[in-house]
Amino acid sequence: MAPVTQPPEIGVGMLGYAFMGKAHSLAFQNVRGAAWPPPLQPRLIAVAGRDEQAVADAAARYGYERWTTDWRDVVADPSIGLFDNGGPNSLHAEPTIAAAEAGKHVLCEKPLGRTADEAYAIWSRVAVTGVKHLCGFNYRFVPAVRLARELIESGDLGEIRHFRGRYLQDWAEDPGLDTWRFNVEDAGSGAIGDLATHVVDLSRFLVGDIAALSAVVRTFIPGRKVDDAIESVVEFESGAIGTIESTRLALGRRNAFQWEINGSKASLWFDMERMNELQVFRADGDRARGAKTVLVTETDHPFVDYWWPPGHIVGWGDTFTHEVVHLLDAIANDRDVAPYGATFEDGYRASEVCDAIVRSSAEGSRISISYRSL
Amino acid sequence: MAPVTQPPEIGVGMLGYAFMGKAHSLAFQNVRGAAWPPPLQPRLIAVAGRDEQAVADAAARYGYERWTTDWRDVVADPSIGLFDNGGPNSLHAEPTIAAAEAGKHVLCEKPLGRTADEAYAIWSRVAVTGVKHLCGFNYRFVPAVRLARELIESGDLGEIRHFRGRYLQDWAEDPGLDTWRFNVEDAGSGAIGDLATHVVDLSRFLVGDIAALSAVVRTFIPGRKVDDAIESVVEFESGAIGTIESTRLALGRRNAFQWEINGSKASLWFDMERMNELQVFRADGDRARGAKTVLVTETDHPFVDYWWPPGHIVGWGDTFTHEVVHLLDAIANDRDVAPYGATFEDGYRASEVCDAIVRSSAEGSRISISYRSL
Amino acid sequence: MAPVTQPPEIGVGMLGYAFMGKAHSLAFQNVRGAAWPPPLQPRLIAVAGRDEQAVADAAARYGYERWTTDWRDVVADPSIGLFDNGGPNSLHAEPTIAAAEAGKHVLCEKPLGRTADEAYAIWSRVAVTGVKHLCGFNYRFVPAVRLARELIESGDLGEIRHFRGRYLQDWAEDPGLDTWRFNVEDAGSGAIGDLATHVVDLSRFLVGDIAALSAVVRTFIPGRKVDDAIESVVEFESGAIGTIESTRLALGRRNAFQWEINGSKASLWFDMERMNELQVFRADGDRARGAKTVLVTETDHPFVDYWWPPGHIVGWGDTFTHEVVHLLDAIANDRDVAPYGATFEDGYRASEVCDAIVRSSAEGSRISISYRSL
Amino acid sequence: MAPVTQPPEIGVGMLGYAFMGKAHSLAFQNVRGAAWPPPLQPRLIAVAGRDEQAVADAAARYGYERWTTDWRDVVADPSIGLFDNGGPNSLHAEPTIAAAEAGKHVLCEKPLGRTADEAYAIWSRVAVTGVKHLCGFNYRFVPAVRLARELIESGDLGEIRHFRGRYLQDWAEDPGLDTWRFNVEDAGSGAIGDLATHVVDLSRFLVGDIAALSAVVRTFIPGRKVDDAIESVVEFESGAIGTIESTRLALGRRNAFQWEINGSKASLWFDMERMNELQVFRADGDRARGAKTVLVTETDHPFVDYWWPPGHIVGWGDTFTHEVVHLLDAIANDRDVAPYGATFEDGYRASEVCDAIVRSSAEGSRISISYRSL
Repeated sequence: MAPVTQPPEIGVGMLGYAFMGKAHSLAFQNVRGAAWPPPLQPRLIAVAGRDEQAVADAAARYGYERWTTDWRDVVADPSIGLFDNGGPNSLHAEPTIAAAEAGKHVLCEKPLGRTADEAYAIWSRVAVTGVKHLCGFNYRFVPAVRLARELIESGDLGEIRHFRGRYLQDWAEDPGLDTWRFNVEDAGSGAIGDLATHVVDLSRFLVGDIAALSAVVRTFIPGRKVDDAIESVVEFESGAIGTIESTRLALGRRNAFQWEINGSKASLWFDMERMNELQVFRADGDRARGAKTVLVTETDHPFVDYWWPPGHIVGWGDTFTHEVVHLLDAIANDRDVAPYGATFEDGYRASEVCDAIVRSSAEGSRISISYRSL
Repeated sequence: MAPVTQPPEIGVGMLGYAFMGKAHSLAFQNVRGAAWPPPLQPRLIAVAGRDEQAVADAAARYGYERWTTDWRDVVADPSIGLFDNGGPNSLHAEPTIAAAEAGKHVLCEKPLGRTADEAYAIWSRVAVTGVKHLCGFNYRFVPAVRLARELIESGDLGEIRHFRGRYLQDWAEDPGLDTWRFNVEDAGSGAIGDLATHVVDLSRFLVGDIAALSAVVRTFIPGRKVDDAIESVVEFESGAIGTIESTRLALGRRNAFQWEINGSKASLWFDMERMNELQVFRADGDRARGAKTVLVTETDHPFVDYWWPPGHIVGWGDTFTHEVVHLLDAIANDRDVAPYGATFEDGYRASEVCDAIVRSSAEGSRISISYRSL
Repeated sequence: MAPVTQPPEIGVGMLGYAFMGKAHSLAFQNVRGAAWPPPLQPRLIAVAGRDEQAVADAAARYGYERWTTDWRDVVADPSIGLFDNGGPNSLHAEPTIAAAEAGKHVLCEKPLGRTADEAYAIWSRVAVTGVKHLCGFNYRFVPAVRLARELIESGDLGEIRHFRGRYLQDWAEDPGLDTWRFNVEDAGSGAIGDLATHVVDLSRFLVGDIAALSAVVRTFIPGRKVDDAIESVVEFESGAIGTIESTRLALGRRNAFQWEINGSKASLWFDMERMNELQVFRADGDRARGAKTVLVTETDHPFVDYWWPPGHIVGWGDTFTHEVVHLLDAIANDRDVAPYGATFEDGYRASEVCDAIVRSSAEGSRISISYRSL
Repeated sequence: MAPVTQPPEIGVGMLGYAFMGKAHSLAFQNVRGAAWPPPLQPRLIAVAGRDEQAVADAAARYGYERWTTDWRDVVADPSIGLFDNGGPNSLHAEPTIAAAEAGKHVLCEKPLGRTADEAYAIWSRVAVTGVKHLCGFNYRFVPAVRLARELIESGDLGEIRHFRGRYLQDWAEDPGLDTWRFNVEDAGSGAIGDLATHVVDLSRFLVGDIAALSAVVRTFIPGRKVDDAIESVVEFESGAIGTIESTRLALGRRNAFQWEINGSKASLWFDMERMNELQVFRADGDRARGAKTVLVTETDHPFVDYWWPPGHIVGWGDTFTHEVVHLLDAIANDRDVAPYGATFEDGYRASEVCDAIVRSSAEGSRISISYRSL
């Protein structure tokens, strides 16, 4: 039997091994099978985490060659070309900046920073190093979301009037829940940084920047230190208006990132719990008119060539494979991460909107948002 | 063959013969067949309208004995015990007040007034006459909406945290559209009085009064004199928060009055385009948990005894039959129209919220709402 | 105030006052409001039924001038021009034939006969009288079903390969249920005549006649005398193949008359529980391809001019209004009831298929069906 | 940084590198990340295929150490403990038997054989070797399907009356399509072996063995040598009745493996295009009754611990990971593949049903099925 030739590799170092650590690690393992030949074949070098037993276990499980409890070991490792930061929000800034300054390309989970100031600092310090940077807004890599973007780019929607986005979950009823996500220092915020930031990025990806907003932030569960829910009215620079909502207290909504866009020629709507479907209404004059339930698995749909024949759906985890392939392609071929991937500038801009939500709620007034440049 | 004995009658006089005139007239004709024995059997005496040919035609079509081009004839007719005002918004105040002052019970279409001041005037002047008054928020009489109310009343939802309501239509793209609905004098407003007022009433019916809101009002179509769309964030007196939206520019949404309520024990959601279905999620610990698609036609569901065996759905027009039976029952048995029917006080309160939407948009700030009493 | 001129009338006599009696009576009352000017205005003259108190009550409720316990009184009444037979299946033949022979137009509920022989007798004896005859397959008058028919007629589906139809209900679990529907003499059969006959007529309406079938008939509930469910494989004369199913034991399916048609150019599917929606998939090469959820309420959709603006749905009961207007138009203008309405020939042909289902089940073999002509 | 300890391995050899080869290879790679610690860690040793370039490419892509164009090399390799046969149907028998006789555990894609005789030969010859054998009915490993099985096992459905299963696809319209799937010698049949066999296995998995059936087999596309579609009525040994259908000509249905089960206490229904959802109706007397849309991702649902928090859905490809973990567990811990995995006996029994479908269609009569034992 004949031996096998492998594609060129890039060393990957990971910070964090929990939810995002798992999602990203499986994604790196699937790159080759999905996108062949891969731009670069990830080699999982090292994973860092605080708990010695847990990180050792994660290293074995996800196929890392080594593990450490000090992320500085990863940053210092010359065999690592890509640093992936899946740690809690409070650990986004320092390790990500350090890795970039050590010449490694960086992927950092959302929210980029706990505040706009922190996010701006990460973006500006990483940008000067010249490495590739991607902020983990993985929902840009849902095939239906990318198809929506492509339909909009092609002018199919006409003038966009409305965006309605809401990210609804329901796991936070119990006042005794104790994870870093309820700790202000670790997380920065509650449903804002966890969920609303996804809606903000999505709205920017599909409709453009937000010019102004009015919002209410609310904590329902007694004793909780972070917000449970936000509601906001937004005005886009394009003139479109709409709503952005997020909550962890919408019983029966498990991962319901739902959005709708109304244009003068077509409308789109979507629910992450049915992430393989995009609803598309076209004002095409057909007597049989109505919204199409598009199962986004056709041969001319985004990412379908990574996977299966039409009709065979992908899972939530697969979006991360799409995301890391995109980043590896940017690295291998020196392409821009934008506009299909979120850069750290996108991460920063989402943070400005989140800060405005907090301020509008406190002040009781509409906030006009201005964005800093480098 | 034996002759037939009929139930006691009430004379009905109608103002208007278009959309609402038709809906109400068919409803009156169906009272007997639906609710047997009826509290009172409506006898359609007279219909008033501006166009002589059209009103004569309407009288024949809907079974009125007489017609007139002067609504004062109807108000003056002693055989008429119930005055139904389905005219344009600008004709709500004067005829309705006159009819009440002539001792007739009154049904007036929504919005009660074009402004809170006008609505307050109608309410206060009618209230002192002692007649029964109902404001035509017919969606309270959708079986699924009533079931929602009854589930909430029974405590099934626990503490309510969120209300999200939007009324989306898409018929107003054409700048050349010319009906009284685009005339400021006739209509008072656009999507606000036409659609948002329904959402406001629904939210009050299910969650309670609104304490404060922030909103944006927008006209997209060049040259249009009334608003096309509104977006608002609302805070209820109960502590719940949410959104209220309405637009006539949501392509693909024909009559999409959609709402969702999240409580600590259950959630409900609904879409008027599937008005016979209520989605109900209960936190009941069942391993097979998920939102139920309740086809609201069961033998223990509201209004089902008016119609058909389980599974046989009702139509949009049937809600008006439910509404007028409710009013006839209040008249016949001297019962309160509230809380299941909307009184003129409810009509007024909805107007206060609509006024606040306009003011918040203009001022760029959150508006706290105070309601007048008699 | 001016008096009103009424359209020309036709006297209506009804046999039966229960489920179908109510549905038809309300339909007659709504003719004028829906279809203006009506071909003929129904005047409800008399209703016949076995129980004196119940029929007197029904007469008052539905607006009949007189009532009787002897249907022969109705047949003999010269003021009656249309005889509507909504009685149990065992009372279809004799009164319907008598009414036709008395020169009255006839509407008879489905199934026309309890057997093909009985149905053939009704058809052949009524046909020679020259009156108009309609068999109450009201689902032909669901707007979405008519739209389906019109799409097929226009060639939109191409060559049809598959029809899958099933009528699922779930009310017959209780062995103690006691209505005429479980009595062999009154009903003739169970789910066959009650439900399967609707599926057969629908399949004929949309795809054409059935050439052969194989079936199983089953009674699950101990002691029950009629069938609970049937399953069959059918071959159409056109070459299409498919299934026809009916059961009263499909828990959770309340009135689920569901069907799907696959053609070489388009597919359609439908569920009566969402009777205002037709799913339409076209092989039109659109990148955003998928089945459209068509809300069949558009201005160019069947029957919409009878009712409301787009998006405002009709109810199950409204199909009967469509049906009786169709028949009144055939009477007033001497038009054929076919092809959009079901004639007694259609009623007979459905019975031949139902008989074949019974025979195939008993014999364990495929049955080729031949149809008799006059 | 500390090195990593790996779990015990099993060598895997694969026959085929196309659709199933890819699905299985990615599954093997994901075992460790999903099920930790894995029963055995698959080491991808060798892949065999006919085309030298393609198989070399596949080896690199999916991480096999070696490749060959002669499957006998794989069977002869002592480092391989598990032989996975993803080749065309005509290559199922000989290599699978050879591998088992060489002492390797075997996974063979469905249909096990092209006829019941061939399937019986594979089963009987492999069974005597004592190795573990699994037939690739991967849909048993869809979380919603497993949940359905567990609900049935727990008695939640009561007595089962109906099974309706159909596997609808639409890719075979083009008469010029040329793959092994249209070649009688390679495939054995068309929609029967490709799709109907899945429905048969599913029905057996959930309801039990089929006792008798009547069927029609049809080829619509001129010149095609294999069947395009089948329709059948089935009777189960338990007394339940229903339908089994499959077609590759149902336009708009891309991978619509849909089924419904009605029991005396609950009903279930499912569509593979929404494979993360199970519809569950319970006759529990709740006033708000209706079918639940269960998103099968809850912490107490099958396979969820392999993946993500509730609400984050899995993809079609993930079912293969569940399948191979199941087989590896059976191997490592000497457990039975049955009942949750399909054995070669299950593969054989499905073939008996498929043969009966062909025979019933040819003979025009109901076929009673008898199953051979070893």
